[in-house]
Amino acid sequence: MSSFDPRSVKALLFDVFGTVVDWRSSIIDEGRALGARIGNERVDWVAFADRWRGMYQPSMERVRSGEREWTELDVLHRESLEALLEEFGVGNLAEHDLADFVDAWHRLRPWPDSPRGLARLHERFILVTCSNGNVRLLVDLARSAALPFDAVLGPPVARAYKPLDRAYLETAALLALEPEECMMVAAHNGDLAKAASLGLRTAFVARPTEYGPGQTEDLEPDQPWDCVASSMHDLADQLGC
Amino acid sequence: MSSFDPRSVKALLFDVFGTVVDWRSSIIDEGRALGARIGNERVDWVAFADRWRGMYQPSMERVRSGEREWTELDVLHRESLEALLEEFGVGNLAEHDLADFVDAWHRLRPWPDSPRGLARLHERFILVTCSNGNVRLLVDLARSAALPFDAVLGPPVARAYKPLDRAYLETAALLALEPEECMMVAAHNGDLAKAASLGLRTAFVARPTEYGPGQTEDLEPDQPWDCVASSMHDLADQLGC
Repeated sequence: MSSFDPRSVKALLFDVFGTVVDWRSSIIDEGRALGARIGNERVDWVAFADRWRGMYQPSMERVRSGEREWTELDVLHRESLEALLEEFGVGNLAEHDLADFVDAWHRLRPWPDSPRGLARLHERFILVTCSNGNVRLLVDLARSAALPFDAVLGPPVARAYKPLDRAYLETAALLALEPEECMMVAAHNGDLAKAASLGLRTAFVARPTEYGPGQTEDLEPDQPWDCVASSMHDLADQLGC
Repeated sequence: MSSFDPRSVKALLFDVFGTVVDWRSSIIDEGRALGARIGNERVDWVAFADRWRGMYQPSMERVRSGEREWTELDVLHRESLEALLEEFGVGNLAEHDLADFVDAWHRLRPWPDSPRGLARLHERFILVTCSNGNVRLLVDLARSAALPFDAVLGPPVARAYKPLDRAYLETAALLALEPEECMMVAAHNGDLAKAASLGLRTAFVARPTEYGPGQTEDLEPDQPWDCVASSMHDLADQLGC
């Protein structure tokens, strides 16, 4: 790890999906509940959740590349969901069931250490989201999971999906901070690599089951990030909270 | 008052200066502390605070009109401050004193009912700022005054000072809400008139001493707003919190 003074950091920028909340088990549970409600017990909701998430990057890539105008994640999530219904034999869903399943991403469960770990970090640092989720999704998520973010910034405000530069740099600018006064917190080496290349500090928080028991990526830090932590509490300890 | 169902409202959009925080007495006290620190006891800090605030609308008007590109409030505050130093016989200030006095707007005191009143409202509604303050100013203010805003939206995100339409409508759009699902909360009839014209619900919270004991404007509602309240607690009561 590099040596740095935590007092030089003013704000923590959080990746959210996978880093702060456990999207996978939440979506699997919501799928199972939906299946029970509509009387369809044949769907493999584990595979469904992974496929839905698998469509996340490709759907954003069309926006990032400029092929498609700015489109919020709720819309991308819904389009992906609609494309998967037939493939997985879910059948036609009523509008309220469709909308409710898209909204499942607004109420993902936090990892157990996130609410109290973030509360400790909040005593000393400005905490903002730097997530590809849309503003309403992140506001709902923060409220339902009791996450003490000071503001929702990043992609939906910059209108640029990570890892485009603007997603990170506009966040620092809106906080009137230099990049090196900001620390990106993520469970994903790629997110941190981009943040570091722009001058931000970096904290890797390991989430080795984000993708389930067979996860092969992001099990460990692949660079000497400024902090490497096993939980938000560990990060709070390391940052002197 | 019009009759409306509070359950149709999902988010409260807050004006901040004057409505949630008492800028005037805060700036007067900060001025007096600065005067004592620099050994200049001759300045009329009450008049100074009123003049500083008096330059607020004209400075934004140059941005609103397009005469000047988007410029954050911290910059406008600093320019106005620099223009007033000679007029009031403050003398030259060291850079750290200048910067600290501009930062006084980041630590304005809340009206006594605001922190707990907003906490009650937060249990039921999404709370966001719709203030002309910049993001960092509002984040600092919310942290120092313990104001439970879910997000900082409005002018600094829309890059449009109130009362331009975009300041209100982009806030509703980022929350994925229709205007009528949003309620503007302000101590200023003009702000509410614009919000109402765009379809938002309106709540007037009386702050009859915002401009000191001689205040003549905004002492009372000048239209039948959806709610008229004497404090944030009164508003929480009326909205069924």
